[in-house]
Amino acid sequence: MSNDPWLKSSIMAKRGLAKGEAGKRHELSIEAQGDFHYVYGPYAKPVLTINPGDIVVVETEDAFGGVITSETDSPTAKLVFPFLNPQCGPVAVNGVEKGDCLAIHIHAVETRGAQPAGTTCIIPEFGGLVGTAATAMLNKPLPERVRKMHVDKNGVRWSDKITLPYEPFIGTIGVSPEIEAISSLQPDYHGGNMDLPDVAPGAILYFPVHAKGGLMYVGDCHATQGDGELSGVAIEQRATVTLQVDVIKGWSFAWPRLETQNFLMTIGSARPLEDAARIAYRELVRWMSADYGFDEIDAYMLLSQAGRIRLGNMVDPKYTMGASILKKYLVS
Amino acid sequence: MSNDPWLKSSIMAKRGLAKGEAGKRHELSIEAQGDFHYVYGPYAKPVLTINPGDIVVVETEDAFGGVITSETDSPTAKLVFPFLNPQCGPVAVNGVEKGDCLAIHIHAVETRGAQPAGTTCIIPEFGGLVGTAATAMLNKPLPERVRKMHVDKNGVRWSDKITLPYEPFIGTIGVSPEIEAISSLQPDYHGGNMDLPDVAPGAILYFPVHAKGGLMYVGDCHATQGDGELSGVAIEQRATVTLQVDVIKGWSFAWPRLETQNFLMTIGSARPLEDAARIAYRELVRWMSADYGFDEIDAYMLLSQAGRIRLGNMVDPKYTMGASILKKYLVS
Amino acid sequence: MSNDPWLKSSIMAKRGLAKGEAGKRHELSIEAQGDFHYVYGPYAKPVLTINPGDIVVVETEDAFGGVITSETDSPTAKLVFPFLNPQCGPVAVNGVEKGDCLAIHIHAVETRGAQPAGTTCIIPEFGGLVGTAATAMLNKPLPERVRKMHVDKNGVRWSDKITLPYEPFIGTIGVSPEIEAISSLQPDYHGGNMDLPDVAPGAILYFPVHAKGGLMYVGDCHATQGDGELSGVAIEQRATVTLQVDVIKGWSFAWPRLETQNFLMTIGSARPLEDAARIAYRELVRWMSADYGFDEIDAYMLLSQAGRIRLGNMVDPKYTMGASILKKYLVS
Amino acid sequence: MSNDPWLKSSIMAKRGLAKGEAGKRHELSIEAQGDFHYVYGPYAKPVLTINPGDIVVVETEDAFGGVITSETDSPTAKLVFPFLNPQCGPVAVNGVEKGDCLAIHIHAVETRGAQPAGTTCIIPEFGGLVGTAATAMLNKPLPERVRKMHVDKNGVRWSDKITLPYEPFIGTIGVSPEIEAISSLQPDYHGGNMDLPDVAPGAILYFPVHAKGGLMYVGDCHATQGDGELSGVAIEQRATVTLQVDVIKGWSFAWPRLETQNFLMTIGSARPLEDAARIAYRELVRWMSADYGFDEIDAYMLLSQAGRIRLGNMVDPKYTMGASILKKYLVS
Repeated sequence: MSNDPWLKSSIMAKRGLAKGEAGKRHELSIEAQGDFHYVYGPYAKPVLTINPGDIVVVETEDAFGGVITSETDSPTAKLVFPFLNPQCGPVAVNGVEKGDCLAIHIHAVETRGAQPAGTTCIIPEFGGLVGTAATAMLNKPLPERVRKMHVDKNGVRWSDKITLPYEPFIGTIGVSPEIEAISSLQPDYHGGNMDLPDVAPGAILYFPVHAKGGLMYVGDCHATQGDGELSGVAIEQRATVTLQVDVIKGWSFAWPRLETQNFLMTIGSARPLEDAARIAYRELVRWMSADYGFDEIDAYMLLSQAGRIRLGNMVDPKYTMGASILKKYLVS
Repeated sequence: MSNDPWLKSSIMAKRGLAKGEAGKRHELSIEAQGDFHYVYGPYAKPVLTINPGDIVVVETEDAFGGVITSETDSPTAKLVFPFLNPQCGPVAVNGVEKGDCLAIHIHAVETRGAQPAGTTCIIPEFGGLVGTAATAMLNKPLPERVRKMHVDKNGVRWSDKITLPYEPFIGTIGVSPEIEAISSLQPDYHGGNMDLPDVAPGAILYFPVHAKGGLMYVGDCHATQGDGELSGVAIEQRATVTLQVDVIKGWSFAWPRLETQNFLMTIGSARPLEDAARIAYRELVRWMSADYGFDEIDAYMLLSQAGRIRLGNMVDPKYTMGASILKKYLVS
Repeated sequence: MSNDPWLKSSIMAKRGLAKGEAGKRHELSIEAQGDFHYVYGPYAKPVLTINPGDIVVVETEDAFGGVITSETDSPTAKLVFPFLNPQCGPVAVNGVEKGDCLAIHIHAVETRGAQPAGTTCIIPEFGGLVGTAATAMLNKPLPERVRKMHVDKNGVRWSDKITLPYEPFIGTIGVSPEIEAISSLQPDYHGGNMDLPDVAPGAILYFPVHAKGGLMYVGDCHATQGDGELSGVAIEQRATVTLQVDVIKGWSFAWPRLETQNFLMTIGSARPLEDAARIAYRELVRWMSADYGFDEIDAYMLLSQAGRIRLGNMVDPKYTMGASILKKYLVS
Repeated sequence: MSNDPWLKSSIMAKRGLAKGEAGKRHELSIEAQGDFHYVYGPYAKPVLTINPGDIVVVETEDAFGGVITSETDSPTAKLVFPFLNPQCGPVAVNGVEKGDCLAIHIHAVETRGAQPAGTTCIIPEFGGLVGTAATAMLNKPLPERVRKMHVDKNGVRWSDKITLPYEPFIGTIGVSPEIEAISSLQPDYHGGNMDLPDVAPGAILYFPVHAKGGLMYVGDCHATQGDGELSGVAIEQRATVTLQVDVIKGWSFAWPRLETQNFLMTIGSARPLEDAARIAYRELVRWMSADYGFDEIDAYMLLSQAGRIRLGNMVDPKYTMGASILKKYLVS
């Protein structure tokens, strides 16, 4: 993945301190991690400090901390709020501070641990088609249900009849806010629990930095997921995640961005859902204007014809959408 | 298009009165249409009555009624609310009544009229990134702007540098409500102004019928459009639309459905946007349960991994999303 | 009510064609009405035509058309969608046309019919704390339940222990759209099912007119109701409604307005709920600017300190809020 | 205020460790406070530790940290995000831990500092009728504007013609989350920036405790405010706040609650606004069921007739509503 020719022309390669070149390789095992984190904030000590360009190989837990081991487990009995969605890190990067940008190139997301490695379930009062803590209802919750399944790089064995493709991505990744400590269940301007399938091997993420060192956290990998993560739960898995981290000095913006070979994407998280779309598209207008010479109104009119939007989640404390434009249209 | 082999296995072919076979061909020219309609309702007399299986070739006006003819035109001066988005029809179908389903197979959507055939513009207080009549703001509106461009089957010439693919579809199509007359600017349970790019040549639409004869209306074709129709306006064009209309007796459901070779889609329209997604996904759960043997909770869990959702518009009086599942997964 | 001294200084008295003077008295009994209407639209013939200043005494049915007569009735079995919320009218007013304003002074709303005259109930998939047709959920609906109770001008006998005050108002009232026919279940720019307790005896309503004659409809009286009409149903009652109707020529605006002795109110209906609030408050800003000499930004800042907002319903197809300002502050 | 006879029958008096009796009086001056806090979280050391029943007199800064001193000041130039809305505290209370309830009886909110003591202003991209960071728009922001005015207990001198009543309350108050550190600009389950005028002298607040000691923060007093805090800014003032703090062991619930002589209120904060209303009303249903013997469906039906709801803010990161029921109806 890291040798893809397009990477030479990526923003990371052109503007990063390490010019997109890979540096030293660090391992962050479960043991090395020790305690997990359940907030994204500046109050935790870095578990690792690296240089721009370095590669970090992180062992992640699944979103349940691995406690749902059988289809007869009760999520309600096993899961203890707010200690959900354990995060590895924070990883500090030398030379990065507020006002800079952290570039994270995802090399790989590989399933880890014993089979059945994939877990999904129904958690009462959580999900897109049920009353929840926020969309508060008097209806009785759905019954709990757990499915465990074999997952490897060849696919997700949903049932005897259905095998879904293995399309892994990172559900939760981001940097620390300046003074807030935000639940790892929530996506926001700092990244976090975006649950957006584009955050996948091959992509480069760009996060605005708010705290010295950036303080990257990561966890919650999915073997596959539909648009919206409808039931609130994807195919959750433990994973080994390989990330190359670079720094772009003095590049500041409001919300996470993402680059692939073919498109640029901006990521917004908000409720109601249209505000997530508005944030994402306005950020894209601003990016097209700031870096690609578009007049804002022209960018707006072009996106009305050529913009694409992907629903990440419609279940987390904020919903997430990614708005994108093909690079080939970035010629104003 | 109408000879695609997959059509033989479509729901229309299997359940329609005409078994998916094409019948008589009718022309509904601009002259034959006479007055256009600006509501979807049962209060207008059918302009044409056909039999199940018949083909209708309809000449449509663009959403502006063709009055924006130059880049120096002022949309505000030219457009007279509520006489926007002129619709052809209604077309009555013999033998269909409340409780049945109208199946509409889209054969073709072809650009019509003199070049520059494509129009887009900024309309004050309308669009996804501006204050509107409903999301009422005190900010000053954006300035008006009009772009006219050459459109043919080879592409949409956005500018000297950018040519977008010609991906035409029908912005507004549907059937009459039972007693309501709904503005042609609005999408809802009856179809209408969904602005969903999947409503394209090759697809089959299924509408629940509320009024005797079904009373199909159609108009508002787009040469291409991005997800969300961000500025409120696509590449609007006059078109010649070829539709094959069939009837499925006794098939009733709540919201429009769509079938292609590869997937089934349900279409929801609502505000806020998450309610459009909820409607679409719940309809898909119900369809999978009613016709494909899924337990509802299993369908819900599977869609959380394999569901896809497309944003049609985030600018109309209701927003529209289409939720889909690949047919190959419909094996419970 | 009609002799309150403040009425002399009302907008109706100052600007109405009849100067707020009462004219001829008309009776619109259930028998005279004949068929009820379930849409607000221009497609029905007026049942009565009056002159500006005339008084109309209307007998209304309750929102259920009177079919829920016992606590053992099943709402699901008795109610036939879309034939809910029967409306009387339309009443045409001579001399009023698009661009004018219809002023309606509510003299009285009196309980009608045999005891127990009040009805409330739980309707599955309808209400503020349950999944609905739009906020689509997979949860099982709440069980049905009906309560019938004695209602007279001394109170609403909720139970042996609780008597609520009799605070009657009109749940559904308004004028015809220009070309739409809008369900009587829905509130919108034309009025309709606003379910706002301020629409009560003593108040004057102002509706922008869209169709010749104005075409006033009315129905759906409530003996009392909480903010939001939480369960979707108030204390529904048959009523005798006394209205004085006047016409203000050339006074046009976007959304319904209301005047009492002490305050002016603007009424917005939309989803999500913040858009109802935005509409209402923006209309109030515009009213303060157009008629009371306020700079728009000053009006906005003053409403931030002295504005009041009332939640009508959070259950209908659009939610309704009324924003108000005390008249004594209308001195810019 | 603390001698009101109704207090003897308050929940605080009946269930609090100090039985509603006032204990020792502590002063928390600006000097004693030292650094302010801009998040509600468990990562700050208590500035004061008290016993149940103790009284704390706190000097608060205004929401701008006092930097807007003249009508020619530019909010944009003076305000540095995220260091807005400075909070005093945290105050730890002996003997309280997760699962308990902190009861806070507000004795007084008195204007502090030199005249003109009241400040309001327009902040670009913040407010209820403008595009914002979340409801992202391309429209140009409103111009900045500042108003300073004389405020004392006799009134708020808005202008030569308009004096508003002095109706002071606490805009921001609450307790620490367990692991999150939430911006002082945001209201949520922990209280925070609710901007709800009912949080006024005479009321008793009840907060569920998440961290040892409760860790109460307070700031941001308003001299008066309209429903919704429409422009995003009330009449901001420095204040001296007198609070009596008690502890109810083992009383746990999800969202802040409030008691006055006449009513009980539950407070929800969320977007979209209907979710704030849903949270507040569901909490009230649960409270009526848990402590007053109501069947949940009966409580729901009664609130549909007798519930009241107050809009606190429609401008903060979450919107706030308070749902209430008169105590006299709590007889099931």
